[in-house]
Amino acid sequence: MAHHFTTRVYYEDTDMGGIVYHANYLKFIERARSEWVEQIGLDQLALREAGLVFAVRRITAEFHAPARLGDVLEVTTTPKSVTAARLGLHQQVHLGKALLFEADIELVAMTLAGRPTRLPPEIRAFG
Amino acid sequence: MAHHFTTRVYYEDTDMGGIVYHANYLKFIERARSEWVEQIGLDQLALREAGLVFAVRRITAEFHAPARLGDVLEVTTTPKSVTAARLGLHQQVHLGKALLFEADIELVAMTLAGRPTRLPPEIRAFG
Amino acid sequence: MAHHFTTRVYYEDTDMGGIVYHANYLKFIERARSEWVEQIGLDQLALREAGLVFAVRRITAEFHAPARLGDVLEVTTTPKSVTAARLGLHQQVHLGKALLFEADIELVAMTLAGRPTRLPPEIRAFG
Amino acid sequence: MAHHFTTRVYYEDTDMGGIVYHANYLKFIERARSEWVEQIGLDQLALREAGLVFAVRRITAEFHAPARLGDVLEVTTTPKSVTAARLGLHQQVHLGKALLFEADIELVAMTLAGRPTRLPPEIRAFG
Repeated sequence: MAHHFTTRVYYEDTDMGGIVYHANYLKFIERARSEWVEQIGLDQLALREAGLVFAVRRITAEFHAPARLGDVLEVTTTPKSVTAARLGLHQQVHLGKALLFEADIELVAMTLAGRPTRLPPEIRAFG
Repeated sequence: MAHHFTTRVYYEDTDMGGIVYHANYLKFIERARSEWVEQIGLDQLALREAGLVFAVRRITAEFHAPARLGDVLEVTTTPKSVTAARLGLHQQVHLGKALLFEADIELVAMTLAGRPTRLPPEIRAFG
Repeated sequence: MAHHFTTRVYYEDTDMGGIVYHANYLKFIERARSEWVEQIGLDQLALREAGLVFAVRRITAEFHAPARLGDVLEVTTTPKSVTAARLGLHQQVHLGKALLFEADIELVAMTLAGRPTRLPPEIRAFG
Repeated sequence: MAHHFTTRVYYEDTDMGGIVYHANYLKFIERARSEWVEQIGLDQLALREAGLVFAVRRITAEFHAPARLGDVLEVTTTPKSVTAARLGLHQQVHLGKALLFEADIELVAMTLAGRPTRLPPEIRAFG
């Protein structure tokens, strides 16, 4: 049950190689995670006021093929492993049928002081 | 008495035109403002804890010539007008003798709640 | 006859002030210009292959109120003045009825070698 | 024999969490790679005119602790494995003695048409 999100490549995303600057794929998949989090019923601003933020702990990313200006990219987000404190997601970026980029992301929940804390129940429900 | 700051162009700053993406000059001159503010004795983190942040109110910018990968740019920052609540700066970006970009920037001080407040005395001293 | 474009604020757009980093409004309005250019029948990639790129010459921008994470912003783009070589646009960013940001933008057409050239007829038609 | 590079955190690098936005560490280490490539005698602009660009193929990154506004970060770059076509680097970001971020990066050389090609001899010399 992957979550699907669409985002478009603009001039700001490209570099002098004529393609999307590699670090910007991390932005694209973070946009998709924000949409996914909202869809499962969480409000990141409310969570933050309640003292909880998400933090990326680990990323393994593979760059298969480049995206270009105007490309409409589809980002899929799939929960892979969930414990009380740690969420593992697999995310892919496709252009049509072509897989351009994929990543495994490990997220944790933190207090505003930077201490690990339990993930919200809406996320633990995926475990 | 302009403040001088040097910054280099990296891949992240370029776009598919092969030159620096236009919005990134605003980043370059903001870096210079942060260094200038520090040099006149202000600590932005301490100010923020004390409830004061700077906000840009107005920018007039002219793009004269493009910068490219590897260029070492010099940013000059010159105070132009200072009142209790408003700071006007002129900032230029040069590559060697060539003027690439210049801007007039109007800044105000705000409380964290977004209300205008007096600028710190270190800045008002330029008035 | 303003062009309308909607864009959402993500984590990447915010800064430690808790609001959208000021330079990112230039990205938002550039996205809108790309959509507008496409809507009037131009293909930026084809233009570039034909040797024509757009360049920003001048920006006057006013920051009225901040945008925050999750805000869905509406960007309007209105042609104001068009000559053979120069296009003036007025762009506004609203959140609901609130005007957050507005800018006057002057664009020119350039050859890949950086020489001014005539704007495409689809744009000159606004003159 | 690690290469050392220093870079500072500015407002543009932070997010509403009050710390450096996670994707920006990829920018910091890319700056370091550009400096390293230059130090071993390569000119990325000349390489590109000769038809060769570098592309990131794979990144494994761990986020240990956050960086904040004003932090002066040290990025170390260490070649780990080099074949004719593939370069493996280990990169770390320290704040003083504290390790904030580390990544293993796999790079390849590509023609402008996107086909894999041999790495320049200056890099293969690390093999």
